[in-house]
Amino acid sequence: MKIAILGFGTVGSGVYEMISNHLVQSTSQLEVAAILVRKEKPKTNPLMVDEIDKIVLQKDIEVVVEVIGGIEPAHAYIRTCLEHKKHVVTANKAVVAKYLYEFLALAKENNVHFLFEASTGGGIPWINAIEKVKRIDSVSELHGIFNGTSNYILDHMYKDNVEFGEILQKAQALGYAEADPSSDIDGYDIRNKLQISSALAFESFIPEGFPVFGIRNLTKLDIEFYKEKNLTLKLIASAAKTRNGYHCIVEPCLYPASSLEANVPENFNLASIHGTTIGDLKFYGQGAGKLPTANAVIQDILDISEQKANTISLNYSLSYTPSLEKKQYYVRCKLSNDEIHQYFHAINFDEIDYHSIQYFHIKNITADAMHTLMKHLLKIDKNAMMAAIQEVTHD
Amino acid sequence: MKIAILGFGTVGSGVYEMISNHLVQSTSQLEVAAILVRKEKPKTNPLMVDEIDKIVLQKDIEVVVEVIGGIEPAHAYIRTCLEHKKHVVTANKAVVAKYLYEFLALAKENNVHFLFEASTGGGIPWINAIEKVKRIDSVSELHGIFNGTSNYILDHMYKDNVEFGEILQKAQALGYAEADPSSDIDGYDIRNKLQISSALAFESFIPEGFPVFGIRNLTKLDIEFYKEKNLTLKLIASAAKTRNGYHCIVEPCLYPASSLEANVPENFNLASIHGTTIGDLKFYGQGAGKLPTANAVIQDILDISEQKANTISLNYSLSYTPSLEKKQYYVRCKLSNDEIHQYFHAINFDEIDYHSIQYFHIKNITADAMHTLMKHLLKIDKNAMMAAIQEVTHD
Repeated sequence: MKIAILGFGTVGSGVYEMISNHLVQSTSQLEVAAILVRKEKPKTNPLMVDEIDKIVLQKDIEVVVEVIGGIEPAHAYIRTCLEHKKHVVTANKAVVAKYLYEFLALAKENNVHFLFEASTGGGIPWINAIEKVKRIDSVSELHGIFNGTSNYILDHMYKDNVEFGEILQKAQALGYAEADPSSDIDGYDIRNKLQISSALAFESFIPEGFPVFGIRNLTKLDIEFYKEKNLTLKLIASAAKTRNGYHCIVEPCLYPASSLEANVPENFNLASIHGTTIGDLKFYGQGAGKLPTANAVIQDILDISEQKANTISLNYSLSYTPSLEKKQYYVRCKLSNDEIHQYFHAINFDEIDYHSIQYFHIKNITADAMHTLMKHLLKIDKNAMMAAIQEVTHD
Repeated sequence: MKIAILGFGTVGSGVYEMISNHLVQSTSQLEVAAILVRKEKPKTNPLMVDEIDKIVLQKDIEVVVEVIGGIEPAHAYIRTCLEHKKHVVTANKAVVAKYLYEFLALAKENNVHFLFEASTGGGIPWINAIEKVKRIDSVSELHGIFNGTSNYILDHMYKDNVEFGEILQKAQALGYAEADPSSDIDGYDIRNKLQISSALAFESFIPEGFPVFGIRNLTKLDIEFYKEKNLTLKLIASAAKTRNGYHCIVEPCLYPASSLEANVPENFNLASIHGTTIGDLKFYGQGAGKLPTANAVIQDILDISEQKANTISLNYSLSYTPSLEKKQYYVRCKLSNDEIHQYFHAINFDEIDYHSIQYFHIKNITADAMHTLMKHLLKIDKNAMMAAIQEVTHD
C-alpha cells in the first residue's frame, strides 16, 4: 500500500524510517511514495515534493499521514486528501481538537477513514481503547496523565527536591520540553487531548471553555507541603458524565502516594477509563517521542490495510456542562486579612501557615468556582498555586 | 449473529445476561440461541440443551463461546465446534495453555477464528495488545500481575499487617479465592496465563517445565522485612528473549515501593510488554470477575461479527530455554551451619538475623538454580520462602 507523508519532522521521519528500513513486522506491504515538505526546505530525498497536488492527484497513494502539526495548512491538506478519497492518519492533536466533526463528516462522505490514534497518548493505544470500551459499555469517566513533559518535571521535583525552573531547564536540554514550554506546563497540550478523548468517549462535539490550570507556579516548598500529607501532585485531565451531560477539567491533582497515578515516572503517560461492565482500565506508556508516536501512526495504517479500521461515527448526544461536584483544594496565595475576607467569605476553608507561607485548605467548592476564584487570586499574587485533592476508588 | 454458550457458570451467565438484556452498545445484532449445560443440571432456561450435537448441527449458530473451564470435555467440544466451521471464543486458560497449537491449526483448516482474549488478563485487552505490538515490533519481554486473588492477599497483608491465613479466609468469604486456593497462591493459574502470553508474544509452542513458585509460605514478618527495605512483594509472571530463545518464570518478586507494580491494589492485574519501537506498555484492570471477563468474551464476538478479528497464526520460531541471567533473592529458611555449608557453599550470600529469624540475601544466581535450591531447602524447612529482587528500568 502506498503512503504519502505530509511533514518531515520528528514523527514524519520516524514513520518514514520505520517503513523504509522494514522495521515493521507486519506482512502488509507498506511503501512511502511521497513526502511533502515546505518549498524553502532542501529536498534531501527523491520522494520529497512541495505541492499537495503532487500527492492528491497520485491515484495509487491510498493513505496520507499528516504530521505537519498546527492548524493551517494541516487542516486544508487533510480536507483535500479526504475529498480525493484518500484515507488520512494524523498525529496532530491541535487540528483534530478543532476540526474532528468536519473531518469525520468528510471522511464518511468520501467513504474513507480518518484516524488519529497518535494524536492523544502517543504510543498508548488510547483512542482504540475508548472505541473498544464504548462498543460494549457506556463510559462514566476518563482521566489521566497526558503530557510527558510536565510529568517529567513533577517526577523530578518530587524525587530530586529541586525548583521548577531548574528541572524545566534540564527537560529542555534533554529535548523533553520546548524552548517555549507554555503548551506543556500551562495545560494547553492536555486540553487538546482531553477535547479529543471526551468528544469520542461521550459522543459529543468538541467541548469548549472548560477550566484549565497548569503547574507553572509550582514551588519546591509546595511539593514538601504535599509530601508531608502523603500526596503526590500530577497534572491531570479528567472528564465525567454529569446528570445532564459531561464535564471536563485540566488541573493539578493530588493523589495518594500509593495510587497508580502518583507512581507514573519520568515522561510516561497513564490514561484511565471506566466502563459499565469492564470497570477501571488504565493504560501506561510513552505519550510522545519519535518511535512510539510513529508506531501509533503505523498501527492506524495497518488497520486500514488489513481492513480492520473503525469507522468512527459520533451521534453527538451529550454536551459539555460544568461540574456541580464539590471538591477540596490546597491553595497557596499571599493575602491580607481584608483580601481573605473579600474572596473567601462564602467558602469553607482553613488557613495554614507552612514555613511562614500562607496556604489555604478549601473544603467544598466546584472546579469552575475554584478556577474563577483562582483568576482573581492571581491578580493579587501572580505566583499563587492551587491543587485539587483527589479521592481514589477501586472498582 | 447467533451464539451458543457452553457452560453456564459465572462467565457464561455474564455473557448471557449482557447479550440478552441488551447491555451491549454495539449495533451488531447478537443473539444467544443455545446454552449447553450438563445432563444432571435443571434446565432453567428454554435455550438450555445437554448435547453438543444440538449446537454443532444448528447451522445458523456462527459463534460458540466455551466457558466450561478445565480440560475435558472443553477440549473435545472446541474441536467439534471448529470442525463444524463455527468460530470459537473461550475464556478457559487451562485448555488454551494445553491445546493452543491444535486449536489454531484446526481453526485455520476450517477457515474460522479461535479467539481467547478472556483467558488471560480477564477484562484487560491483553491478547489484543500482544498481537498489536507484534504487528510492528519484536517483543523483548513481558511480565505482570496476572492473578487477582494473590494480589488481593498481598495488598492486604501489606496494608493491614495481617497473617496470610487470615486474609486468605477473608478473600474466600468475599468469593475472591476458592475453597482450594492452590491454583491461585501456588502460581499455577498464572503459569497457564504465562504459557499463553509467551507462546503468542514469542511465536512458539506452549513452553513447559519452567520455574514456578508461589506465596503460600509468606508470613507477616516477611512483609515487615521487605517493607524495611522499601520493597513490595508481588507474584509475577515474566518472560523475556534470551540469546537462543526465551525464558519464563513465575515467582514472588520484590519491587521498589514507588514502582507501578508495587502499587497495584486489591484484586487488580497489571500486564506489561516491551516492544522495539513502542517501548514499555502497561495495562491495568480487572483480571477476573463475571462482567469484566464476559466483556472480553463479547469483544472477541464483536471482532468476529465486524470482521475485525485477528487470524492468529504463529510461526513457532523461538523456543523456551532457561534464563542465564543472574539475579538476587531474599530467602527465609531455618538452616544449621552444616546445612548452610552444604547448600550455599558455591553461592555468594549474606546471612541476616531479623527478629531472630534466619534470612539469606543470595546475590548472584539464575532463576533455575534458585528454584532447584529452594526445592532442597523446603525439604529441610517446609515453611521456607523466597523472593526475587526486581530491578526496574524505564524505557
